[in-house]
Amino acid sequence: MRMVDIIEKKRLGRKLSKEEIDFWIKGFVSGDIPDYQVSALTMAICFQGMDEEETTNLTLSMLHSGQVIDLSGIEGFKVDKHSTGGVGDKTTLIVAPIVACLGVKVAKMSGRGLGHTGGTLDKLSAIPGFEVELPAKRFIEIVNEIGVAVIGQTGELVPADKKIYALRDVTATVSSIPLIASSIMSKKLASGSDGIVLDVKVGSGAFMKEQKDAVQLAQTMVDIGKCAGKKMIAMVTDMDIPLGKTIGNTLEVLEAIETLQGRGPKDLEDVCLKLAASMLYLAQKGTYEECLMMARQALESKKALQKFAQMVQKQGGDPDYILHPERFARASYHECIYAPTSGYVFHMDTLACGMSASLLKAGRMQKDDWIDEKAGIVLEKKTGDVVQKGDVLAHLYASDPKLFPSAMQSLQNAYQILEKKPILQPHCFKTIQ
Amino acid sequence: MRMVDIIEKKRLGRKLSKEEIDFWIKGFVSGDIPDYQVSALTMAICFQGMDEEETTNLTLSMLHSGQVIDLSGIEGFKVDKHSTGGVGDKTTLIVAPIVACLGVKVAKMSGRGLGHTGGTLDKLSAIPGFEVELPAKRFIEIVNEIGVAVIGQTGELVPADKKIYALRDVTATVSSIPLIASSIMSKKLASGSDGIVLDVKVGSGAFMKEQKDAVQLAQTMVDIGKCAGKKMIAMVTDMDIPLGKTIGNTLEVLEAIETLQGRGPKDLEDVCLKLAASMLYLAQKGTYEECLMMARQALESKKALQKFAQMVQKQGGDPDYILHPERFARASYHECIYAPTSGYVFHMDTLACGMSASLLKAGRMQKDDWIDEKAGIVLEKKTGDVVQKGDVLAHLYASDPKLFPSAMQSLQNAYQILEKKPILQPHCFKTIQ
Repeated sequence: MRMVDIIEKKRLGRKLSKEEIDFWIKGFVSGDIPDYQVSALTMAICFQGMDEEETTNLTLSMLHSGQVIDLSGIEGFKVDKHSTGGVGDKTTLIVAPIVACLGVKVAKMSGRGLGHTGGTLDKLSAIPGFEVELPAKRFIEIVNEIGVAVIGQTGELVPADKKIYALRDVTATVSSIPLIASSIMSKKLASGSDGIVLDVKVGSGAFMKEQKDAVQLAQTMVDIGKCAGKKMIAMVTDMDIPLGKTIGNTLEVLEAIETLQGRGPKDLEDVCLKLAASMLYLAQKGTYEECLMMARQALESKKALQKFAQMVQKQGGDPDYILHPERFARASYHECIYAPTSGYVFHMDTLACGMSASLLKAGRMQKDDWIDEKAGIVLEKKTGDVVQKGDVLAHLYASDPKLFPSAMQSLQNAYQILEKKPILQPHCFKTIQ
Repeated sequence: MRMVDIIEKKRLGRKLSKEEIDFWIKGFVSGDIPDYQVSALTMAICFQGMDEEETTNLTLSMLHSGQVIDLSGIEGFKVDKHSTGGVGDKTTLIVAPIVACLGVKVAKMSGRGLGHTGGTLDKLSAIPGFEVELPAKRFIEIVNEIGVAVIGQTGELVPADKKIYALRDVTATVSSIPLIASSIMSKKLASGSDGIVLDVKVGSGAFMKEQKDAVQLAQTMVDIGKCAGKKMIAMVTDMDIPLGKTIGNTLEVLEAIETLQGRGPKDLEDVCLKLAASMLYLAQKGTYEECLMMARQALESKKALQKFAQMVQKQGGDPDYILHPERFARASYHECIYAPTSGYVFHMDTLACGMSASLLKAGRMQKDDWIDEKAGIVLEKKTGDVVQKGDVLAHLYASDPKLFPSAMQSLQNAYQILEKKPILQPHCFKTIQ
């Protein structure tokens, strides 16, 4: 078998066999197949695609390139949740405690943020003392004790994905549905849970700009998960508007706490409750409607908030910050942007909002960039809101005032204000099981 | 400027600017741009193509990556000829002396063969003593003295093409018209002639399998050449049937000599006369019809044969072999394949014929393979011929009898014999100026 023939086959639009996909992945991980052949193949896949069987085989081949986390030491049904990434997406901080306080285990591995998207690990790391790197044994112990833990992904998990993703990132082959689906699902399958709820974001702040692409990605991932024997639900949710009001790590932790206190922004609460309900439903806690009600009660009773504080404590953080969020340190400098005209916020370029936050050092432009956990944005107005000329649209926070001009410019440009009222989309477009 | 953005742009089907193309070629030659980005870009080009301006810019960028041969030391009009490669294509050995004996200078650089295609340098090297590696100064001296010389391409010519071609070869991105056109034309432009005649082969033994692709390639190369100020003609000629009767280096030299003696196979003679006429026409030796007649007379008068012997002598070879071809050493072993049934030779898989010759060691499977100059094939029957069951279809020659079984199998499979008479195509489909 020769890699050049496999590339040629895909270039011509033909289907790759399981053996050919295994040959590629094993050869690349071992170093026998050079990166220039893999980048040519991934580009051919961008154009020719892969069918369900090929995508599943690719996922399984990547999965088997490394370790699979053994969660059999955790009693009961384990449920995982994954978001394809967006701006202001702090749902894990809210959803995981809701689900865990209702008796379903959440042993979750998360990632860091890059570019315009945030990462759960960066948000958790903004809580003083919180430790995201734990040995597998301790991770399992915590989940058994309190029902939930969120840690970083270990390097031994899916090394093939790590190598391929690094290559795709510099060869403009990120935006291919089978490659995205296999990348996400290989990691989710390696994480060992019994059920997986996927939150596929769509809109100006998401990787998927079009609903049909998001639905196709969601369906592909659900199919792969089911093939691998997992219980699956995917929700396609809106990322044409930032989720909630805050962007930036400390600010997002504060908003998550507010939401766990039952006084969070409605869009964020709505998405969180539906994600939590889906997770509970996979764990057979009742009908979907019953699960939704249980999730809502977990917020109202503050049980989810207490569970979050408990998780923070178990992972080395100071739970007093969760119960007294006024203790969080704030950024030294503050600026505002204002509505240049009266009307409706007709559209927001959510990617530009995320980039503005990154310019304030709330996110990373490059993989190894330092993050200022205190920096970020609080949005006073979002798509659909009425504004009067001169109203504050958003607050910007930074530790260095020199960062404001370009961040303010980017954020100002992200707002489109028109006389016309926009038609608002639902927060959740579609659920795929 | 970032290479990843250039790749993305082409993936999305957008046009690359001259600056972007220069950035890519310069960066790749200098080592600043890694091969995995170039292979992703060439794959994107396979799918999205390049327009005339992009292809010309790519050609010029590659041309300027290295030396350009200065032929200003040669008096008069210099004309070059290039074939896109095929099986049994020994036209240069016949065409160059015809043109030179009629007073038009041919300062030609040729290549080696690979896979199913032969190379002019390998054929010339089968003549005892013939030297294909000459310093530029001596090359120019010979052309000034006798009007013709054929040497190997120097390493300093178009280093970008060398690097890119090596990468395309192992990443299944060879078959892209703009990449093929820019690869060929950058080398032809670097070779310094005033006029260029291109022989674009089409059919089962050529890289271009379809006439429309061959015509497009021919047109693209003519356009590039004209942009660069060269006089251009391209002929699209048949390679669905091997050209002439012989495949293999000594055997092809013998057939070239026969053709120069005026008793070569009609298909070979026809293509050679038309190529020579096109070259003479570019040099303004008369109308195309007049040039065709002059070329024919050069064969009949044996002046072209004498010019070939003179070139052999000037390049260190023994001209007595040209005048007494019976002196050439022959292969020690001989086998035949026979017609399994009566009928017409309906089709030949010409690529398989070339591969069969390579299995006899007449050609290279890998770049560094040793070639047996005496080995090869003489075709007794070709497409359109009537055969009786048991007739000899072809003779195979080798220095090692162990090579026969697989070569005979491959050659036997190349022949399709049916009761139905095939419709024969003309040897030259189209001329593009």
